[in-house]
Amino acid sequence: MHLGQGLNRAAQTKPSGTSTIFRDRRRTWRETAERTARLAGGLRASGLGKGDRAAILALNSDRYLEYLFAVPAAAGVTVPLNPRLAPPEIASMLDDSGTTMLFVDAAMASALDALQVRMGQVRQLIWLDDAPVPPGMRGFETLLDASPVSGVAAQDDDIAGIYYTGGTTGISKGVMLSHRNLVANAANMIATVGYVSDSVYLHAAPMFHLADGASTLAVTMVGGTHVFIARFDPGAVAASIAAERVTNTLLIPTMINSLVNLPGLDAFDLSSVATVPFGGSPMPGAVLQRATERLPACRFLHVYGMTEAAPLVTALEARDALVPERSKSCGKAALMVEVRIADAEDNEVPRGTVGEVQVRGPNVMLGYWNKPEQTAAALRNGWYHTGDGGMMDAEGYVYIVDRLKDMIISGGENIYSAEVENAIATLDGVGEVCVIAIPDDRWGEAVHAIVVPRSGRMLTEAQVIAHCRDLIAHYKCPRSVDIRETPLPLSGAGKVLKAELRAPFWAGREKRIN
Amino acid sequence: MHLGQGLNRAAQTKPSGTSTIFRDRRRTWRETAERTARLAGGLRASGLGKGDRAAILALNSDRYLEYLFAVPAAAGVTVPLNPRLAPPEIASMLDDSGTTMLFVDAAMASALDALQVRMGQVRQLIWLDDAPVPPGMRGFETLLDASPVSGVAAQDDDIAGIYYTGGTTGISKGVMLSHRNLVANAANMIATVGYVSDSVYLHAAPMFHLADGASTLAVTMVGGTHVFIARFDPGAVAASIAAERVTNTLLIPTMINSLVNLPGLDAFDLSSVATVPFGGSPMPGAVLQRATERLPACRFLHVYGMTEAAPLVTALEARDALVPERSKSCGKAALMVEVRIADAEDNEVPRGTVGEVQVRGPNVMLGYWNKPEQTAAALRNGWYHTGDGGMMDAEGYVYIVDRLKDMIISGGENIYSAEVENAIATLDGVGEVCVIAIPDDRWGEAVHAIVVPRSGRMLTEAQVIAHCRDLIAHYKCPRSVDIRETPLPLSGAGKVLKAELRAPFWAGREKRIN
Repeated sequence: MHLGQGLNRAAQTKPSGTSTIFRDRRRTWRETAERTARLAGGLRASGLGKGDRAAILALNSDRYLEYLFAVPAAAGVTVPLNPRLAPPEIASMLDDSGTTMLFVDAAMASALDALQVRMGQVRQLIWLDDAPVPPGMRGFETLLDASPVSGVAAQDDDIAGIYYTGGTTGISKGVMLSHRNLVANAANMIATVGYVSDSVYLHAAPMFHLADGASTLAVTMVGGTHVFIARFDPGAVAASIAAERVTNTLLIPTMINSLVNLPGLDAFDLSSVATVPFGGSPMPGAVLQRATERLPACRFLHVYGMTEAAPLVTALEARDALVPERSKSCGKAALMVEVRIADAEDNEVPRGTVGEVQVRGPNVMLGYWNKPEQTAAALRNGWYHTGDGGMMDAEGYVYIVDRLKDMIISGGENIYSAEVENAIATLDGVGEVCVIAIPDDRWGEAVHAIVVPRSGRMLTEAQVIAHCRDLIAHYKCPRSVDIRETPLPLSGAGKVLKAELRAPFWAGREKRIN
Repeated sequence: MHLGQGLNRAAQTKPSGTSTIFRDRRRTWRETAERTARLAGGLRASGLGKGDRAAILALNSDRYLEYLFAVPAAAGVTVPLNPRLAPPEIASMLDDSGTTMLFVDAAMASALDALQVRMGQVRQLIWLDDAPVPPGMRGFETLLDASPVSGVAAQDDDIAGIYYTGGTTGISKGVMLSHRNLVANAANMIATVGYVSDSVYLHAAPMFHLADGASTLAVTMVGGTHVFIARFDPGAVAASIAAERVTNTLLIPTMINSLVNLPGLDAFDLSSVATVPFGGSPMPGAVLQRATERLPACRFLHVYGMTEAAPLVTALEARDALVPERSKSCGKAALMVEVRIADAEDNEVPRGTVGEVQVRGPNVMLGYWNKPEQTAAALRNGWYHTGDGGMMDAEGYVYIVDRLKDMIISGGENIYSAEVENAIATLDGVGEVCVIAIPDDRWGEAVHAIVVPRSGRMLTEAQVIAHCRDLIAHYKCPRSVDIRETPLPLSGAGKVLKAELRAPFWAGREKRIN
């Protein structure tokens, strides 16, 4: 199975069904399949050869979806980039991937100016927007003046896309996902979310990221409808749901929070929403409760995954989220995914014991682009090593404890930064918190907390430490606390950049830079 | 993905969930996984090597399911045989497959006696039943006194099972299905039927046949529950549904008919039944209507497939069955299945044109066991050639017209036997009907009908021909009609054995024996 078969199925079984809705533009699956085949023809005519990389730097749109299917149909490789990256980061990804063709939209114009000096091997710029085509670029629609490509030359295990990982570690790696990986994930998503031919999916989270991308092929395979908003905005989400009778969307908890707290939300009819997977982090109980009140017919599924797993690994059913002892779990293994918890020697540990979360299945990546050593390390012994510390209970529920590299080893004790952060977060007045390991001559590492008080509130180091002593073991409590006013640095995916916070403490030392 | 991963997922995510219910015996997934691992160990200890064939000749039971998972876990190959076959047919399948180990139950004892003279390479007989173990056999449970096999040595493209095709043609071929084929089909079934972890599936149709077998891995992968009755019986079906709150079962239309006409049916609570796929033939409208009245909350899905496709190819959603012009369709391509209608040169024909139904996808068989020529012919140009004549409409709905070999070519015109049969069936007093080609010196072939009147009714050849002339083109009307009292010969799958009916007419000629 490759991506084109999913698109062909949609065109065969729902030819006059609505494929994409973007602003005032609506297309059918017959049109989308035909446009994609002609775009693939245009890409080939423009010199995109088998295995060549064509990147994209754009907000969400219907043409983004056509790009995602046309490039692989031309036997090329997609490289969806994060529009929020800084120009030097984009340049390094274009260089690393050896991209020769870049799709951009108007929102990226300024980034593009900054990039002009460092375009690497990029020889062609394709303008995705309806706005006039800037000099030196080619308009998206003119590429469609080509003979359609019929069939796909790709094999199931060929690379379909290179997805750069988030960059909480500072080093971004290109994850090679094959056609088979993406199809397997789509089947897993269909079984987990329950996509059917009537599904209407709203792309509200950014399409470059596989949190949203997890559903792109799945919704296509079932012949559902894609609705796009250029970028997340709670008002636009509510309006799109009401206007298009959206049944599904992927949101991260902060997006759900801003949606359910939107002033005037009650004016929108959100009753069509059936299932919303959410990921990135567990949803705070109060947010889930408010969301459930506002969308009583909607199932909220906590999903866990990562780019290397294409991405779905586990899912927590909505009914389990209401069971207190399970609400902090990220659920059970998805349909065709094997999950285990293993020790440093890759032996499975007994249930209830913390170890590394490991993943096996047809969804697991081919490897990291041009990084054979990191690939061998990540995939050793046939399992993908997530680097996440986790635990599985007797019923198969997985609980993520911490990133292994965020674990603090102090005096031989393992301390999970997340546990310390959760304790500090319960202190009144705490806005943001992050706990990291800093070097300690006596204990090897020491627990260090960085706390940002809520606006208008004051906190002291002594208060924070005293609060922790009431809640967690003494050895887990911070030895030092930095109270600061500035927000914590976040990755494009909204995760705290712990590596950046750790870096000044570990300068000149081998460990803990990342 | 191989079969063992589905079983492991059930054991990991639903360890204390009910796996199997047979008579008074109930097991959990933890127990079933553990028993299967020990059975696999016992099979290895008994000399079953990688790729060795272990056949089964038995009615439905929980141990049948354990066999289906244990043999592949031991890297062996299952060979599920039809218990209704005659001993010479069984002997030829045992010979052809080179089976060394045979599982049997008490219901097969008489067949076994007849077989003793022709057991081919079978060296071990395993007794599946609770009844005392006959001399010369080994008890199923004693095989479990072995060390469990952990993990599976099989690769995704290794053969998991050999399934002998129905035999309407007289020549039964062993269809080799890989682990990947069966997993792909399971994912397709999950998306089509909507199996979830709460599903309770009743094995009412025989398990050796992939109509029922299509759900065996699917229900296991989601961690659902299997309920078994030894053989189809409408009273047992109703009682099992009511007792175990069955949500799904696979039935053929005649089974549905006998169920909905069961005296006293109203005493059973059938409200748990959510989705019933049915196959083999379209359901007569009156039966569907009665079934829908009796099970108003149930979706009846017409599914089409064949052993070579592991087996699901298309499915018609329940709501489409109520649309008159679609009710005769077998639906649209299943999730990961490509379907096309092609001419004799394998070129896709325009929608609305009759041609051969062809299938591609990860579900399509490896080939026919020990039949490289038939394999090459069936899989030429990358598509499985079903031999079914069919048509696809503009919306992707597939209509099966006829078996291509049942098509009659008379004076250069293609005549579909099904069309003639449908015309005759509307004549009052007709019980059974079958239309075949017989040799004709002038036209090459001629249309010949065989009609069995309903009990107590009389019909004449002239009546039948006159009735057809009112309904279909003259050249399609039967040239001769044989009115007979004896029922038509049926295959084990309930299909009319046209080859057997054609044989006397074509004796001594090359064509139309099959």
